[in-house]
Amino acid sequence: MARKVEVCLSPELMPCYDVAGHTVVVVDILRATSCIVAGLGSGIASITPFADLEECRAMQSKGYRIAGERDGQKVAGFDLGNSPYEYMKAENHGKHMATTTTNGTRAIALSAGCEALYIGAFLNISSLVVTLQDSPNDLLIVCAGWKGRFNLEDTLFAGALVAQLKGTYTSTDDAALASLSLYESKREELTEFLKLSAHANRLSGPNAFKDIELCLTWDQFKVVPVLEGHRLIVSG
Amino acid sequence: MARKVEVCLSPELMPCYDVAGHTVVVVDILRATSCIVAGLGSGIASITPFADLEECRAMQSKGYRIAGERDGQKVAGFDLGNSPYEYMKAENHGKHMATTTTNGTRAIALSAGCEALYIGAFLNISSLVVTLQDSPNDLLIVCAGWKGRFNLEDTLFAGALVAQLKGTYTSTDDAALASLSLYESKREELTEFLKLSAHANRLSGPNAFKDIELCLTWDQFKVVPVLEGHRLIVSG
Repeated sequence: MARKVEVCLSPELMPCYDVAGHTVVVVDILRATSCIVAGLGSGIASITPFADLEECRAMQSKGYRIAGERDGQKVAGFDLGNSPYEYMKAENHGKHMATTTTNGTRAIALSAGCEALYIGAFLNISSLVVTLQDSPNDLLIVCAGWKGRFNLEDTLFAGALVAQLKGTYTSTDDAALASLSLYESKREELTEFLKLSAHANRLSGPNAFKDIELCLTWDQFKVVPVLEGHRLIVSG
Repeated sequence: MARKVEVCLSPELMPCYDVAGHTVVVVDILRATSCIVAGLGSGIASITPFADLEECRAMQSKGYRIAGERDGQKVAGFDLGNSPYEYMKAENHGKHMATTTTNGTRAIALSAGCEALYIGAFLNISSLVVTLQDSPNDLLIVCAGWKGRFNLEDTLFAGALVAQLKGTYTSTDDAALASLSLYESKREELTEFLKLSAHANRLSGPNAFKDIELCLTWDQFKVVPVLEGHRLIVSG
């Protein structure tokens, strides 16, 4: 059965798309979904996303590790910021975590009502593809963007995913075609191209480019995070 | 002075952008802005855009020629539909026209408050570039999209315009970088690539592809439509 894949380039465009009956993949490469994949792939028991910072903070008193960034900075009093390397630390192993991010959590919240919600990143793309090949539904890839804006890194990932799904899913959506084309023309120089991006221009600090390098690395983890209730856990 | 160019990929994303202090170029290649360029380039005196169909219809009794489409079809009782060839007919010469379209008019309305609003299409791109090179403001290219969605044809034009403005304007915006990259990778096969698009898949009728071919033709007209009050007229 031919399944369709569409790409929503920003949460602001979600009113244009149906989520009912669809599988959704949420993408926030820099860095929410890369962190979630790295964390669950490193033994964190669950990650619960929160749109609201204070709701996330309140989870600390319930024994959760709490992670959060606003405008790229770790929130005061939180255990972790937004580096995937922090999520990979042994001290988080087996722990439940609560996280809040500017864009990623919003994309997850706007996807409520879909058949299944997975978390995508370059870090788990091949495992994600296997899961999606077994999924019976049409697919919507939701790019988290940045403060509602289109961004390059999520779009390039969407294009990479559409490329990997060729033969399984057909893209009739203009945004899927554009994402695929953008990815195909830049696939040999992704990191160089992203150095031009708005995100790269906002970065500071010695670890920022190390983080980005990791977030653009394919298949470091085999986990596919799935939303169950309010928690993201390892699928399958 | 270095000026910046940004690209808004859909009217739904306009809340993310400032229009104050900016020059805006509105783009609805298929077909509102191509029609406006073709019409003013063929001697129509002015074209007044309306968001509301009935407000547009009411202009007929004031001596205006009225033009309108909804979902690609000419509105009953209107003088013209949405083919640029209709706008080019001698019978419109010297006439004032009122027009309503699904997407283009909305993009114009959402740009209220900008310094200057121009209408862009492949049909007038070189003249538009000359006008923009003389403009002192930062530039926002607003893609009309389709019912709020991203579309290929407007994005490809935005990329072509960013390409033509290299050296005059710098693009720090991710959407401008993506549009430019998409255009550069598809410039030799624009028509073929657009045959994959959602718009092409919605088309029917023998004249549709003839219209598209015209809308993708560069520099058939030297006019740059500008918004003055509520009317679009020839600039300069």
